Amino acid sequence: MPERTFGEIAGFPPGSTFTNRQDLAASGVHRPLQGGICGGKDGAESIVVSGGYVDDEDHGDEIIYTGQGGRKRESRQQTEDQELVLGNVGLARNSIEGLLVRVIRGAGGDKNYSPATGLRYDGLFRVAEYWHDTGRDGYRVWRFRLVADDEAVSPEVGSEDDVGPVARASTTVQRLVRNTQMAQQVKELHRHTCQICETRIDTPAGPYAEAAHIRGLGKPHHGPDVASNLLCLCPNHHVMFDTGAIYIGPDWVVRDSSSHGAISRLRRAASHPIDAAQLAYHKAHHVP
Amino acid sequence: MPERTFGEIAGFPPGSTFTNRQDLAASGVHRPLQGGICGGKDGAESIVVSGGYVDDEDHGDEIIYTGQGGRKRESRQQTEDQELVLGNVGLARNSIEGLLVRVIRGAGGDKNYSPATGLRYDGLFRVAEYWHDTGRDGYRVWRFRLVADDEAVSPEVGSEDDVGPVARASTTVQRLVRNTQMAQQVKELHRHTCQICETRIDTPAGPYAEAAHIRGLGKPHHGPDVASNLLCLCPNHHVMFDTGAIYIGPDWVVRDSSSHGAISRLRRAASHPIDAAQLAYHKAHHVP
Repeated sequence: MPERTFGEIAGFPPGSTFTNRQDLAASGVHRPLQGGICGGKDGAESIVVSGGYVDDEDHGDEIIYTGQGGRKRESRQQTEDQELVLGNVGLARNSIEGLLVRVIRGAGGDKNYSPATGLRYDGLFRVAEYWHDTGRDGYRVWRFRLVADDEAVSPEVGSEDDVGPVARASTTVQRLVRNTQMAQQVKELHRHTCQICETRIDTPAGPYAEAAHIRGLGKPHHGPDVASNLLCLCPNHHVMFDTGAIYIGPDWVVRDSSSHGAISRLRRAASHPIDAAQLAYHKAHHVP
Repeated sequence: MPERTFGEIAGFPPGSTFTNRQDLAASGVHRPLQGGICGGKDGAESIVVSGGYVDDEDHGDEIIYTGQGGRKRESRQQTEDQELVLGNVGLARNSIEGLLVRVIRGAGGDKNYSPATGLRYDGLFRVAEYWHDTGRDGYRVWRFRLVADDEAVSPEVGSEDDVGPVARASTTVQRLVRNTQMAQQVKELHRHTCQICETRIDTPAGPYAEAAHIRGLGKPHHGPDVASNLLCLCPNHHVMFDTGAIYIGPDWVVRDSSSHGAISRLRRAASHPIDAAQLAYHKAHHVP
């Protein structure tokens, strides 16, 4: 399986149209010739919404998308329960990891939002939530609430006055995707295991951890947007770190900020060096 | 100390003006006659921004507010470090608990945003983050980034067509505040201790826990907005519950959703009954 490409595909901005699935596949915007979801355990990069499932709902900026499986080829009817596997677990993974999915609408979909013929790429959506339900045909369907990602097209306040609005939006999208990928890489490298307590949260959508910035990005902290400024933490230690309940000394010992007693030692990986200067910044500004 | 009143004060919408601190105190919008922060360990309900600290920055919808202490009465100059106590810990508590603070601007503040004379209530702000720094005078100051709470004034999509925009905004504010208060009460009742694992996260801004909805509010789950639909959880168990990695059976046993093995038993409190029907809904829709 080729590595997944999340985010926009160069040369195919939102609004790009395609005559058929062959055209679409060739562009790289949605690679499979038949499947509605291009995804697996590592997330879903793109989906096609084309009215194939009776439980789909299209509201424009919000789509309730039905997962795959449970129906016979060429039939719109469900005859079996859907499972949280393949493309379905891919979309669930997007939800817990904050990965954006490319949405392509086909002519068979809701007539208010779908192209009259062929297919159209309609931009990046986030998977706001997912759950399962009994579909209209009486079998379990997984449902995904997709929301158009406005952030992806709002230009950031910054130093990009030299680019036009389209270029700026695209730059912003790619930066968001790049940052998400960096966080993903750090988490994968640590196998989604907390560098402080070794907790790993296993969920039906795969392992869960958080990439915590040591020194905050943007105003007022201006931390660098690099992997050496990230830690892989469980949510509990993320809260403790952000609130200054704990800090990490130059000896890599994790200490309680009220007693200064040692709690553990930060587990490090040769392929993920941590910038001790950022840890010193954290202690200097967040620990009372 | 009287119980704190978070949110707006009836009869004093944003834009209300006051001749002096006596007037302001009598309204209940900011009760102390002198202090800039009305708050303590349970949070801060209101602050006055009036140019008393050289490190304050007012940008309209965003304010970098300096904590209290470290200077002599009637002096603008810092002569000692500020500590995370009293009103400062109050604002920190707002930040970790999502509590909104009333902001009042006085005539001494930034001339672009402050009234020419007297004082003016300028609405609810959230405390986006806080940290400490060395102030202009060379001593530690705590700084709080306050952001005008837009959600508080965006009318929700709903069934309130019979009220005008002002009444609707005010209703929305009070609903947000009420929901926050309900979540606070549930967490306090459980002493901010996870009902599943007994973890309690102690931070410099006080104990931290999360109020987790068992059945989601709003579309598509339409869970009830009541305390019996909330659990007090640590962030780790909140993630596990929301992702369906664990569920709670009718026997109150917490089970792993892949093995169905028992993990623990939900600790309950007589004063906080849990609605078992919502737990059944959670299992039916979120556990694979």
